[in-house]
Amino acid sequence: MIEYIDGGICAPQGFTAGGIHCGFRKNTSKKDLAIIASDVQCSAAAMYTTNKVQGAPLKVTKEHLADGHARAIICNSGNANTCADNGECIARQTCILTAEACGCMPEDIIVASTGVIGEELTMEPFEKGIPLLAQSLCADGSAKAAEAIMTTDTVKKEIAVSFKLGEKDCTIGGIAKGSGMIHPNMATLLAFFTTDAAVSPELLHKALKTAVTESFNQVSIDGDTSTNDMAVIMANGLAGNNMICDEGEDFSLFCEALKEAAVYLAKCIAADGEGASRLLICHVNHAPDGETARTISRSVASSSLVKAAVFGEDANWGRVLCAVGYTPGDFSVENVDVTLSSASGDTVVCRGSRHMAFDEAKASQILSEKEITISVDLHDGDAHAKAWGCDLTFDYVQINSAYRS
Amino acid sequence: MIEYIDGGICAPQGFTAGGIHCGFRKNTSKKDLAIIASDVQCSAAAMYTTNKVQGAPLKVTKEHLADGHARAIICNSGNANTCADNGECIARQTCILTAEACGCMPEDIIVASTGVIGEELTMEPFEKGIPLLAQSLCADGSAKAAEAIMTTDTVKKEIAVSFKLGEKDCTIGGIAKGSGMIHPNMATLLAFFTTDAAVSPELLHKALKTAVTESFNQVSIDGDTSTNDMAVIMANGLAGNNMICDEGEDFSLFCEALKEAAVYLAKCIAADGEGASRLLICHVNHAPDGETARTISRSVASSSLVKAAVFGEDANWGRVLCAVGYTPGDFSVENVDVTLSSASGDTVVCRGSRHMAFDEAKASQILSEKEITISVDLHDGDAHAKAWGCDLTFDYVQINSAYRS
Repeated sequence: MIEYIDGGICAPQGFTAGGIHCGFRKNTSKKDLAIIASDVQCSAAAMYTTNKVQGAPLKVTKEHLADGHARAIICNSGNANTCADNGECIARQTCILTAEACGCMPEDIIVASTGVIGEELTMEPFEKGIPLLAQSLCADGSAKAAEAIMTTDTVKKEIAVSFKLGEKDCTIGGIAKGSGMIHPNMATLLAFFTTDAAVSPELLHKALKTAVTESFNQVSIDGDTSTNDMAVIMANGLAGNNMICDEGEDFSLFCEALKEAAVYLAKCIAADGEGASRLLICHVNHAPDGETARTISRSVASSSLVKAAVFGEDANWGRVLCAVGYTPGDFSVENVDVTLSSASGDTVVCRGSRHMAFDEAKASQILSEKEITISVDLHDGDAHAKAWGCDLTFDYVQINSAYRS
Repeated sequence: MIEYIDGGICAPQGFTAGGIHCGFRKNTSKKDLAIIASDVQCSAAAMYTTNKVQGAPLKVTKEHLADGHARAIICNSGNANTCADNGECIARQTCILTAEACGCMPEDIIVASTGVIGEELTMEPFEKGIPLLAQSLCADGSAKAAEAIMTTDTVKKEIAVSFKLGEKDCTIGGIAKGSGMIHPNMATLLAFFTTDAAVSPELLHKALKTAVTESFNQVSIDGDTSTNDMAVIMANGLAGNNMICDEGEDFSLFCEALKEAAVYLAKCIAADGEGASRLLICHVNHAPDGETARTISRSVASSSLVKAAVFGEDANWGRVLCAVGYTPGDFSVENVDVTLSSASGDTVVCRGSRHMAFDEAKASQILSEKEITISVDLHDGDAHAKAWGCDLTFDYVQINSAYRS
C-alpha cells in the first residue's frame, strides 16, 4: 500500500534540504544552489547520462560513489560546468566546501550541475553560497531545493510516498528538474531521491535502474540527450527496517514505491516540457516484449509530427502509425489499433492498420484536454509500456531560440 | 567535368514529363499528378523507406522493378495511399491505366504516392487524369512534374547535369519533393532521376545507393521517417555510350555526376524544410571513418536545440558539442573544434572541446545569413561528411499543427 504524502525530499526521517540564490544567475530572485543532506551516512547509487560529452561533476560523483556511500548532494543551476578548463577542479573544490560545512568527508558528497554548457565558471558563488546554504538546512527545505535545481522548468517537481516494510513505516522522497534536452537512453535529467529504508548499495542501484527504465527513460521532450543528467538515491536506514540485501519481498515493495515516485516525477517533467501545453501519454499494448513496447511508445511520444498534430488538436493517426513503423525492432504493423482518450472520452481512430470512419469533432474535443493518451494496440504479444511527452508548440521554439539570452 | 544545365528531368535524351491537377486536392490550382516517361525501355533501380508501415505503391513498384527495367513513373500528391483497404488494388490499377496511355506493360510502370496517410482514396482522379496527363507529355514538362509531386514544399526542385562518358555527351536529370517527415535511414523523400547513359540495372542500383547515402540520407528536417519515400532512377541508353557493366572509370564518372545531382536536390530539400528560414550544413572533419562522420553530422543537423539556436542567431556551441556527444559510435570528444561560417565570414567558437572567448556579435552576424555551416573537427581520423538541415521555426509548428486542414 503506497500512499502519497507531503514533505518531498525531506519526508524520509533524517534528511534536510535547502536552496538559495548565490550568483550563478543574474536574476537574484531565482535560487541557483541546492543541498540535500542526511544526518547519518547513507547507502547511495546513481545512474548517468550516456552522452560522450559529460559535465565535470559527473566524473567526480562517479568517483565518490565508487564505495556505495554518501552523505549529501550539492547542485547548482545556471551553469552546467561542462567543457570548462577548470571544471573538474571546481567540482572537487565544491565537494570540499560542502563536506566542511556538513561535517563529513569530500568523498561522501555528490555534486551535480545543470544549465548552459561551455560557459565560464568560477568558485566565487560556491564559496559565498555553500556556508549560507548549509546553515539553512532544515526539515522543510524540499521546496527550496526543488526550486534551486530548476532551469527552464516552470514548476518545481516534488514527491514523497510512504509504504511499509515489515512493521516499519518507510518513506521515499524525490525532487527532479528537466524541461528541454530530455530524451531516453540517459540515466535521466536530474532526479534526487532520499529514503529512510535500509537498503544495500547493490540493491539500491538495482532498484534505481529499474525505476529509471520505466520512468525517466520513457520521457522525451525534444530528442536531445543532455551532458549532465543523473539520477541519485540515498538511503539512510533510519526507518529501522531489516536491511534489504536480497531480492525478496521487501525489495519488491521498495522497487514498487520507488517506481511510483519516479513515474510521478517523470509525468511532471513531461507535462512541464519546454513550451508544452499538453501532457502526451503513449500507451503501447500487446507488444512482443517489454523493450519493444517501451521503444515504440517512445517513438510515438517523441515524434515531432505527432506532437505538432496534438498541439493542433488534429487526429492525424497516420503520423502515429508512421512513428510506430519507423521504430526499430521485430514486430508486426499489420493489425494496429489506435485510440485517443482524455477526460473528454475516447475514440478509436484506426483499426487493423486501416482507415476507418470516426467522429472528427469528438476526436478534436478529446485532443483539446490537458492530458492526452494515445493507445496503440499491436495485437502481437502480451507486453505493454508507457511513455510520456508533450505537444510541440510555438513556445518551444521561442524558449529555445533565445535560451542563453 | 560536370556541368549544370537546364531541362530538369527531361534534359536527358528521350524523356518527356508532365503534371496536372486531377482532383486529389481541393485546390484546383495545385497540380497533383505527375508523369515521367522514356521513349524506350530503361534500366531502372530504386531505394525505399525503411519504415515498417509502407504505402501500397511501394509494394507494387518493388514487384515491377524486380526485373530491373521500367518505362515510366506515375506519382500523385495529396494522398499517400497508405493504410487504405483498397490501396494495393488502386496502385495496380493506376499502373494499368498508365501503361495503356503510354503503350507499354503495367509491369514497366513505377508508381508512387505522397501526402496524407490513411485518407480514403478512389480511382476516380486517376481515371480522369491519366489519359490527359499522357497526352500532355512533352520535352519541357519537367517543371510541371516537379510541381505536381510537391506537398508542403514551397518551391519545386529540379536539376540536370551533363558529363562525358568516352566521346559521348551524357545527361542526368532529377526532380525531388520533401519538406517535412524527412530523416535519414530511409531511401529518401521522393526523388526521380533520368539519364540517357547506358547502365546495367545492377550498377544503376549501386550508383543510386552510393548517391543516396551521401545526399538524401544526410538530410533531416524533423526526425520522422516517412512511409512512402523512394528514390528511383531510369537509364535509357540513348546517349550511345558503351553500356556501363562494371566498376571502371565510366562508372566512377557516372557516380560522381549522380551524386552531384542528388546532393543539389538534397540541399534544396533541406533549405525548403517545413518552416525553415535557413539552410543548416554540418560539416564533420577528421572523424575515424565515413559512417561515423555521416552519423555525427546528422546528429548536429537534426538536433532540435541546435536548430532552434540557429533560428535565434545564438552561437550556443554547447548544444553542438552535446549533439556530437550523444551520437552513437566509437570516437573521441576530447579535442573537438567548432567553427561557424556563412557569407558573413567565419569564427571559431570552441577549441579542444573547451570554452573560449569569441566575438558574440560576429557570431550572431554569421548566423543571420540564409546558409549556415557548422564545422566540427574531431581531430580523430581522416574521414569527413556533410549533412543538411534547417532551423526550427514558429512556422514549422504552424504548418504541422494544421497539416490535414
